[in-house]
Amino acid sequence: MFRTHTCGELRLSNSGQQTTLSGWVQRTRKMGGMTFVDIRDRYGITQLVFNQDVNANLWEQANRLGREYVIQVTGTVAERSSKNVNMETGDVEILVSQLQVLNESLTPPFTIEENTDGGDDIRMKYRYLDLRRTNVRENLELRHRITFETRRYLDQMNFLEVETPILIGSTPEGARDFVVPSRMNPGEFYALPQSPQLFKQLLMVSGFDRYFQIAKCFRDEDLRADRQPEFTQIDCEMSFVDQEDVLNLFEGMMKHLFKFVKDIDFAEAFPRMTWHEAMRLYGSDKPDIRFGMEFVELKKEVSGHDFVVFDSVPYVAGICATGCAAYTRKQLDELTDFVKKPQIGAKGLVYIRCEADGTFKSSVDKFYSNNDLKIIAAKFNAKQGDLILILAGAKIKTQKALCELRLEVGARLGLRDKNIFKPLWVIDFPLFEWDEETQRYYATHHPFTSPNLDDVPLLDSNPGDVRATAYDMVINGVELGGGSIRIHDSKLQNRMFELLGFTPEKAQAQFGFLMSAFKYGAPPHGGLAFGLDRLVSLFAGLDTIRDCMAFPKNNSGRDIMIDAPSVIDQSQLDELNLVVNIKPAK
Amino acid sequence: MFRTHTCGELRLSNSGQQTTLSGWVQRTRKMGGMTFVDIRDRYGITQLVFNQDVNANLWEQANRLGREYVIQVTGTVAERSSKNVNMETGDVEILVSQLQVLNESLTPPFTIEENTDGGDDIRMKYRYLDLRRTNVRENLELRHRITFETRRYLDQMNFLEVETPILIGSTPEGARDFVVPSRMNPGEFYALPQSPQLFKQLLMVSGFDRYFQIAKCFRDEDLRADRQPEFTQIDCEMSFVDQEDVLNLFEGMMKHLFKFVKDIDFAEAFPRMTWHEAMRLYGSDKPDIRFGMEFVELKKEVSGHDFVVFDSVPYVAGICATGCAAYTRKQLDELTDFVKKPQIGAKGLVYIRCEADGTFKSSVDKFYSNNDLKIIAAKFNAKQGDLILILAGAKIKTQKALCELRLEVGARLGLRDKNIFKPLWVIDFPLFEWDEETQRYYATHHPFTSPNLDDVPLLDSNPGDVRATAYDMVINGVELGGGSIRIHDSKLQNRMFELLGFTPEKAQAQFGFLMSAFKYGAPPHGGLAFGLDRLVSLFAGLDTIRDCMAFPKNNSGRDIMIDAPSVIDQSQLDELNLVVNIKPAK
Repeated sequence: MFRTHTCGELRLSNSGQQTTLSGWVQRTRKMGGMTFVDIRDRYGITQLVFNQDVNANLWEQANRLGREYVIQVTGTVAERSSKNVNMETGDVEILVSQLQVLNESLTPPFTIEENTDGGDDIRMKYRYLDLRRTNVRENLELRHRITFETRRYLDQMNFLEVETPILIGSTPEGARDFVVPSRMNPGEFYALPQSPQLFKQLLMVSGFDRYFQIAKCFRDEDLRADRQPEFTQIDCEMSFVDQEDVLNLFEGMMKHLFKFVKDIDFAEAFPRMTWHEAMRLYGSDKPDIRFGMEFVELKKEVSGHDFVVFDSVPYVAGICATGCAAYTRKQLDELTDFVKKPQIGAKGLVYIRCEADGTFKSSVDKFYSNNDLKIIAAKFNAKQGDLILILAGAKIKTQKALCELRLEVGARLGLRDKNIFKPLWVIDFPLFEWDEETQRYYATHHPFTSPNLDDVPLLDSNPGDVRATAYDMVINGVELGGGSIRIHDSKLQNRMFELLGFTPEKAQAQFGFLMSAFKYGAPPHGGLAFGLDRLVSLFAGLDTIRDCMAFPKNNSGRDIMIDAPSVIDQSQLDELNLVVNIKPAK
Repeated sequence: MFRTHTCGELRLSNSGQQTTLSGWVQRTRKMGGMTFVDIRDRYGITQLVFNQDVNANLWEQANRLGREYVIQVTGTVAERSSKNVNMETGDVEILVSQLQVLNESLTPPFTIEENTDGGDDIRMKYRYLDLRRTNVRENLELRHRITFETRRYLDQMNFLEVETPILIGSTPEGARDFVVPSRMNPGEFYALPQSPQLFKQLLMVSGFDRYFQIAKCFRDEDLRADRQPEFTQIDCEMSFVDQEDVLNLFEGMMKHLFKFVKDIDFAEAFPRMTWHEAMRLYGSDKPDIRFGMEFVELKKEVSGHDFVVFDSVPYVAGICATGCAAYTRKQLDELTDFVKKPQIGAKGLVYIRCEADGTFKSSVDKFYSNNDLKIIAAKFNAKQGDLILILAGAKIKTQKALCELRLEVGARLGLRDKNIFKPLWVIDFPLFEWDEETQRYYATHHPFTSPNLDDVPLLDSNPGDVRATAYDMVINGVELGGGSIRIHDSKLQNRMFELLGFTPEKAQAQFGFLMSAFKYGAPPHGGLAFGLDRLVSLFAGLDTIRDCMAFPKNNSGRDIMIDAPSVIDQSQLDELNLVVNIKPAK
């Protein structure tokens, strides 16, 4: 037996007991004839004591231990003279009588501490050492707890977890598929699923009623900072439900997770906001409502004052930064530089300071009298000491820029506390998005999303105004999940395909088996999917999903620890009837 | 709201209540002015009543309902005059006042009944309809229950579920990998994991202590009857454990599953048997111990009687079929034909009847006196009325044939009851297997399996005799899972690679990152993996894993429902820098 206790469980009440521990050497301190060794495992750290006077031989062995050696010790639990209140085991230490080195260790290339000296690349190459760090391990413990509680809740709600296949067929629509050549079917390829969407809808046709799966999904995209080629969804679908049923059930799931994982109770219902309202007030379909600072539209108020910047654009709007009137020139310049960054793209920033004496000071004093500014300030309910920030331009672009500015100011004001969680349902998404380039409508979600049945008459006359029965769960400005009620009526589905520019042949080629299935009694159904990686990173207070995955890939889709992908043997290629033909980059 | 109740929950106590149900039309029966419709959902079936006298219009609508139409009805729960004790809802029926057809259905290509008229191929093509059949759905409900209880047990035991990547690197050893071309890394390929073996060992190096994952695994093999290209493992690993710890913990898991899924209590410890014993007594490393009929070796007893068949071979052994002395000539011929089948490969079958009068009648009376036969029968403890069946030949081949014969006779005698479960640990597997063709040793399990430390001195002198610390859990002759204690000592690992014929370069190329990781303090560790598909099929009493998977593939690795794999667009191939070049079959 390698241990009687873990390194995290001994307490004062164990004093006098014999114990055997196994773990890693966190650090050693030699103080005269006493050597202290911290032994670490997943459960904690315990202090070991070696006394030269008691056993000189053992003490010498202890002095030779290196960082990250794997050791096994036996000894007696004793009360510490100087207790460490920061450690759960800090009241005790082990007077060691036996020591065995189970394995030696090279010196790790970075320190195994919460604040390590290792950079990103070296930590990824030695991910197995990085995972020893308490904070990284805790993220994965949190991930386990979240998936476990998700399953517990959904099981209670009569959901069945069903595994859908990973080797499926390729659908050219949407993001790129990863494909898998089939040796047994020469020249043919499987694809890895971007989501189990079609299969979960088939399971509804099969009468499974309530399905979920914590499912690996794959997208061969050029990876932005926070994307991974493989990611995990909590994928759910229900039959005989309307939007209200779905929202209630998954609001319940999120409350369950907050309660059992974070010990946070949400007594109230999550607020709901239409997509139009979210865009109008926050310029975003995933508003961070931990703080207010809603947009105020000013086009009417600012027009006709010979200020060509405001007169020449369709959209002028601003936000009010509480208590920021005292911002320095430098701070205002920083904000101006921020909105002028290429990825934000505003031309400039107009400010109005609401001074302590009731007057106003703005960057556009030339065009607006103090009374004009007072009228504007009144629209914000601005008080003395507040700062109004205004952007102008094309509507959607400016809304997006103002959204970024709002988040930036909110962050500067400390209004985006990672320990505060503000959930929100965003509903009534538009069913279609118009694409200028290809001059056609695309499905905002996917082609199976049902229109709001009240809006069906608009499908022909004004498709852009049709609301989808689609919904997103947003927490703290992060879109955690979304879904929709699906179309179960073949006629309506065919009409959707038509509007989306699918010929019947193309629709048949891509979704034929689903459309065939729907002919055999498809129930009304709907569902949603949560991004597990984002959910864990939100709960962990992380800015990236990478540190809540055990073995993430880098921005080139590469696992640098195992050096994958890599070239394969010619014999493998031959068996797959494939020739690699690398074309020079254009 | 689509329903107030499911189709499985109404009871006599609901009589008089108003209810709304949604589901599929299982069948309709018109009896004069009364029409009875069975409405079905995942939870059960409820009888609906439409009475011409009460509402002729509604009654006519009901008469037009087809099989598998999706309907919603509202009505009053009423006590049935003739109750159906075979249905949980059989005490009641619904007097329907409102009927809405939610969706129509074409006539399904086979009946949605437990005993369907659909053949395998048509059921696979319309798998979404096949899944509506109660027995198929129940297999998947069982699968859900098993995975849920597996997680519950392992969570209680402090295991963390960690997702390891699906896109990894290819390792040429072992079965064939499925590979995935990387667009971002031209000419390079990911591989899909055959198991998370290397990653779970890395997690032990990372100090995760107790890991599990219900993990999808992939093998590009030519598919035998009961193989699938993607399958699911319950994959587990623990640190600071020896074999005894692992066996106890996973015996606990299996007992937990039997208790909470099948309501079967196993009070006793599971028996253990060495691999040598299993081979000697049952000719198999996965013996079915629901019945005895152990092998008895007879070489000594049968030699020297001028029977050249027995004299010329190294191995003669038999089994005793209780009470089968009365087998007819035809039955004995059937058994002879059975053992002579090419896949079994025996040359013939010798029998000895232990007659009721105490004499013996055998197919080799010419060579053996009644007394000779009596001595043989005594070795079997055969009683009057028993039948002894004997095979002879090369040892291993004959053991395998006799194993098959034993299972066949056991089945004929009804000794292989699917409702009786007999678990067994098989331990002390040989570390190496000798391959005649390539004239070298292969790892019986994998190259990381630790030898029994007592046998290390034999590594050089007699590798074939070295026992592995490897173990299999076998239930009813099915190998449900297996694993081993791993080597954590780099020196021993290098010696293993050497014995297995890996050059240091080849070992480095294939397992370099694991070997590097082991230099940084690898703890003693071990684990095992269970085949989830087999576990579910065992619990379900199925002969194949196919019906406990939602969307299995056929023997060509093809999903005939979605028609995958398939050809992909030229543009996809171009992006992947691949050319398909199908060589004519040789």
